[in-house]
Amino acid sequence: MTKADWIAADWGTTNLRVWAMSNSGTVLDTAASADGMGAITRADYAACLRKLVGDWITPQTPIVACGMVGSRQGWVEASYATVPCPALADNFARPDAPDLNVHVVPGIKQTEPADVMRGEETQIAGFLSLNPNWDGVICLPGTHTKWVHVSADEVVSFQTCMTGDLFAAISGHTVLKHSTGGDGWDADAFDAALGDTISRPEKLAAKLFALRAEGLLNGLPNAEARARLSGLLIGAEIAATKPYWLGQQVAIIGAGSLASLYLRALAAQSVLATQAQAERVTLAGLTAAYRKLKEAAHG
Amino acid sequence: MTKADWIAADWGTTNLRVWAMSNSGTVLDTAASADGMGAITRADYAACLRKLVGDWITPQTPIVACGMVGSRQGWVEASYATVPCPALADNFARPDAPDLNVHVVPGIKQTEPADVMRGEETQIAGFLSLNPNWDGVICLPGTHTKWVHVSADEVVSFQTCMTGDLFAAISGHTVLKHSTGGDGWDADAFDAALGDTISRPEKLAAKLFALRAEGLLNGLPNAEARARLSGLLIGAEIAATKPYWLGQQVAIIGAGSLASLYLRALAAQSVLATQAQAERVTLAGLTAAYRKLKEAAHG
Repeated sequence: MTKADWIAADWGTTNLRVWAMSNSGTVLDTAASADGMGAITRADYAACLRKLVGDWITPQTPIVACGMVGSRQGWVEASYATVPCPALADNFARPDAPDLNVHVVPGIKQTEPADVMRGEETQIAGFLSLNPNWDGVICLPGTHTKWVHVSADEVVSFQTCMTGDLFAAISGHTVLKHSTGGDGWDADAFDAALGDTISRPEKLAAKLFALRAEGLLNGLPNAEARARLSGLLIGAEIAATKPYWLGQQVAIIGAGSLASLYLRALAAQSVLATQAQAERVTLAGLTAAYRKLKEAAHG
Repeated sequence: MTKADWIAADWGTTNLRVWAMSNSGTVLDTAASADGMGAITRADYAACLRKLVGDWITPQTPIVACGMVGSRQGWVEASYATVPCPALADNFARPDAPDLNVHVVPGIKQTEPADVMRGEETQIAGFLSLNPNWDGVICLPGTHTKWVHVSADEVVSFQTCMTGDLFAAISGHTVLKHSTGGDGWDADAFDAALGDTISRPEKLAAKLFALRAEGLLNGLPNAEARARLSGLLIGAEIAATKPYWLGQQVAIIGAGSLASLYLRALAAQSVLATQAQAERVTLAGLTAAYRKLKEAAHG
């Protein structure tokens, strides 16, 4: 039976993922469930966690968690560190949970322009622990994509673009739902639409309804309309975040099709971003947080 | 008991509105229901119409209808005229309806860039019949706002912006639903956000998530977030439609708060738009369509 030295937990809006860890950094076991913040209430957290890690731990085993578990709607509200700051603060939040030794990583906030992150700070810390002295911009694609300027091991500033959230709302809840359904994709249409918004961002509002009209008049395929919508919106994001990526080295944290779209969009702007695997940097970040915790205990 | 010489019908996605008319143009009676295209199936149209106008008509009484009743999902598909063209074509569509003498006004389409309208063409025809020889741009605010260039009694070109549809989807189905609920409004916040997007349209994608972050960090009131979201989106529309309104006389068809926002947005660009009442121009347009129908019958 696995006995962990500590537990790493990535607890987001939709999923809970845990790793049973040894002090030497070996992954002894893993588990996951769909008990994300969005699916459970405050009273459920302890049971949801115990269901996955109960056999691996004693009441003293440190459990280090990041993500929306630390939000106001989560298990316990973890404060925000304020930029400029290291990716990992050390004032972990402690939920009131008998026989569970849980430490929740604080998020990061920016005052002007107002912005917040929760979970990404751990991935950034992990990326920096794997790439010491790295300076540049980290892009973390997702429902709310983050662009993060990192220098001298600190988060200097960041910018959230809710492009994924917009894509889901527009393709699911406007007239374009009739035009963008299905899973099809047209890479040329994505590229063309991306270029359109980047070069003429002021025309964006005039480009959207055409996806519906071309469907009605010319039988535009849904795959093409879907890719064009994505290209228009990611193009608007690339245009808006130019002060972040221009002239910087850029790393994208994430795999899969969404990260590929950002890679492709940046490449079209002659930015050759490197890519890091999300799970790997998350685990590295939680490991860095665990080390911080041990140092504080022994310090 | 009212006996109409003809019936005017404005049959849109959400409502059916009818007028019992005399040949001299007097409104003898009116009625309305919520039996819009979105709420009924093809088999229901005849009964929904009869419910409102049955007592006013004989089987021969001409009924002239405009709006989504003529769409592919409506009662009978009315073809589109192609710009440049007069606002009113004369190839009315005839649904198969025993003892109902119904004529549906065709819509208008544009090939490049692809665009369509259905219902607005009748309002434009009405506006032009009330304002002969008017040249300029007509803005028809709505879920899908139309900007229509009119010259020499023809529709030259037009542009649809789905700003109302976007506002509903973003405020109802993204993370901003937590920040923009309620009915409150902050006119200064609208003006500032409007100016932001018009002057820096490329920053739009970076402005949206801040509404959520400012709520979390600074307690931004929902009324202010809601007005800012509207200002950002209408600002993007004003930026995108600049080739339409710049240096033109502009008329806005519509009343109420949405039309006021467009008036205000244009005024901020030194465009003093005139305003026309939507119901009045719709009825004038249906009257123009009825005259066309009579001329064709006698011609």
